[in-house]
Amino acid sequence: MISLPDGMRQSVLLRERPQGMPTRDTFAIVSEPIPTPADGEVLTRSLYLSIDPYMRGRLSARKSYATPVQIGEVMTGETVGEVVASADPGFSAGDIVVGPRGWQTHTISSAKALTKLTPGVTPLPAYLGVLGMPGVTAYSGMLDIGQVKSGETVLISAASGAVGSVAGQIAKRAGARVVGIAGGPDKCLYVQEQLGFDACIDHEAMNLEADILDACPNGVDVYFENVGGAVQMAAFAALNPFARVIMCGMVSQYNAAEFPPGPNLGFVVAKRVRIQGLLVFDKPERFAEWRALAAPWVVDGSLRYRETVIDGLENAWEALAMVLGGGNFGKMIVKVA
Amino acid sequence: MISLPDGMRQSVLLRERPQGMPTRDTFAIVSEPIPTPADGEVLTRSLYLSIDPYMRGRLSARKSYATPVQIGEVMTGETVGEVVASADPGFSAGDIVVGPRGWQTHTISSAKALTKLTPGVTPLPAYLGVLGMPGVTAYSGMLDIGQVKSGETVLISAASGAVGSVAGQIAKRAGARVVGIAGGPDKCLYVQEQLGFDACIDHEAMNLEADILDACPNGVDVYFENVGGAVQMAAFAALNPFARVIMCGMVSQYNAAEFPPGPNLGFVVAKRVRIQGLLVFDKPERFAEWRALAAPWVVDGSLRYRETVIDGLENAWEALAMVLGGGNFGKMIVKVA
Repeated sequence: MISLPDGMRQSVLLRERPQGMPTRDTFAIVSEPIPTPADGEVLTRSLYLSIDPYMRGRLSARKSYATPVQIGEVMTGETVGEVVASADPGFSAGDIVVGPRGWQTHTISSAKALTKLTPGVTPLPAYLGVLGMPGVTAYSGMLDIGQVKSGETVLISAASGAVGSVAGQIAKRAGARVVGIAGGPDKCLYVQEQLGFDACIDHEAMNLEADILDACPNGVDVYFENVGGAVQMAAFAALNPFARVIMCGMVSQYNAAEFPPGPNLGFVVAKRVRIQGLLVFDKPERFAEWRALAAPWVVDGSLRYRETVIDGLENAWEALAMVLGGGNFGKMIVKVA
Repeated sequence: MISLPDGMRQSVLLRERPQGMPTRDTFAIVSEPIPTPADGEVLTRSLYLSIDPYMRGRLSARKSYATPVQIGEVMTGETVGEVVASADPGFSAGDIVVGPRGWQTHTISSAKALTKLTPGVTPLPAYLGVLGMPGVTAYSGMLDIGQVKSGETVLISAASGAVGSVAGQIAKRAGARVVGIAGGPDKCLYVQEQLGFDACIDHEAMNLEADILDACPNGVDVYFENVGGAVQMAAFAALNPFARVIMCGMVSQYNAAEFPPGPNLGFVVAKRVRIQGLLVFDKPERFAEWRALAAPWVVDGSLRYRETVIDGLENAWEALAMVLGGGNFGKMIVKVA
């Protein structure tokens, strides 16, 4: 990690929109004096930065649910940080907080955007993964869209990832048969042995559609979609009547200049399938709910998770490229300080 | 119409599965003695037969939500008929009934499958269209999936058809801006002038996507899908965040040997769209509900509908081909007797 002179902070700005995979040149790192918080604001120093697939969307000019990051703007991201100075009565120096603060070492935030954490309950990076935005995404997806019932079969793509791993464990707790799809034998082993899924299919294998049908002899009632592409086609072919599809992400195409065609939707009519898009911020109440529910499971070890931690804000671009290429394992975290 | 000797009935059987559009040779017409109803059964003579796009699915070996009609079996279809003889206390000779009884002049049905109508309220064919299965489909779609709210924009394909015409009028009553898509200037004129839609787009026009955006300046909140193909692609491109898509049918591909690819579903995530399949029989309670609600609107003329009536069971195949090719106008009915 680069050491900063006193009173200076480092920020990662969007330098140019990437064609395909983001590279080092996508971003620029700048140093500048640390600003002072105004009334109702808090200055924090970042400890951990979360790296998530959605970030690729922010790098494109194409408008998605959120406005893209503009050229020259600080790249967005969730962090866990420590309060350095507060101009809000709700926070004091030394408080540990989580919030959307961007790729930088020190950030001024509105106090309203921050949530105070109780240190010592779980390791802090957990608040960016299993207990953070990806965990809440899994929870909201299963609860608000999947509505999984005991005895149903749940199929989850990117099953070893930050969202998929939690989604599957929630479905297991609901009494479902849970089948994962992951890239390569190591991830598949982890999904079955460590996360306790009933089966895991390697999407690099030859015959994805047949493998899904083998692993889901009663068909698929809930499909948690993180990937898109060929995996989506194969998963959709296995859906049962009245299946629910949680459309959380389609990471396989985030670097694509043009989107490939999708599945013919005739089956949606014939099988009365419900396909629904998920954005975790649409249900903000789920955040506190999930943290209260799941923190004890993290503490007692019954909710499993895995992290890849990369050192240094200057390597965040590489962490993002790994997430987009499937090269990471579990939740991707950058240790900022 | 062919005149039958006393005591004989005529049935239309599936003779061979069609490649593409059904033809005269798809079916065979047979005559046989009229059977006698057993306990709990009712013998009716058909007056009107409903012809609907879903029937194409029954002609394919491909399993959809219902088992296909087998070679040599009577082709399925809803009819309005008159009770000739009853072995059930609930029905007497002369009663007028509606139910799923197939392409034949006389049918033995379980009494449970029949609904008694009050003659004289509306013309009887209405119970196969605006007050029948297509009308209930529109009602259930708007209520159970579309959940249209006042001020929203609703887009409806096959807008002059039996389902679309009712769906749009329901949406108007709910206070929505309603835009139809129909084939050709005559149908578009009817949709706007007679059905009272706010606008109607000719899908044979050059620039469907631009036309939809012009007619829906605030985007589309509810899309009622009857067509598929290029119309679907264009409609999906206009969807707003949190839009609902009622997947009722995709008639453009019912004769296709292979289904074309569909839309890339990235927008479902980004816009949190809900795409859901509709089958009217999943909500049987909606039938009586809709008849009670809408019959007064049919009587007072405020719920508009249009029928194409073809004479004679022997021409039912042609009526079906017209429905599948978009050659009919409004609800297609075969006058059987």
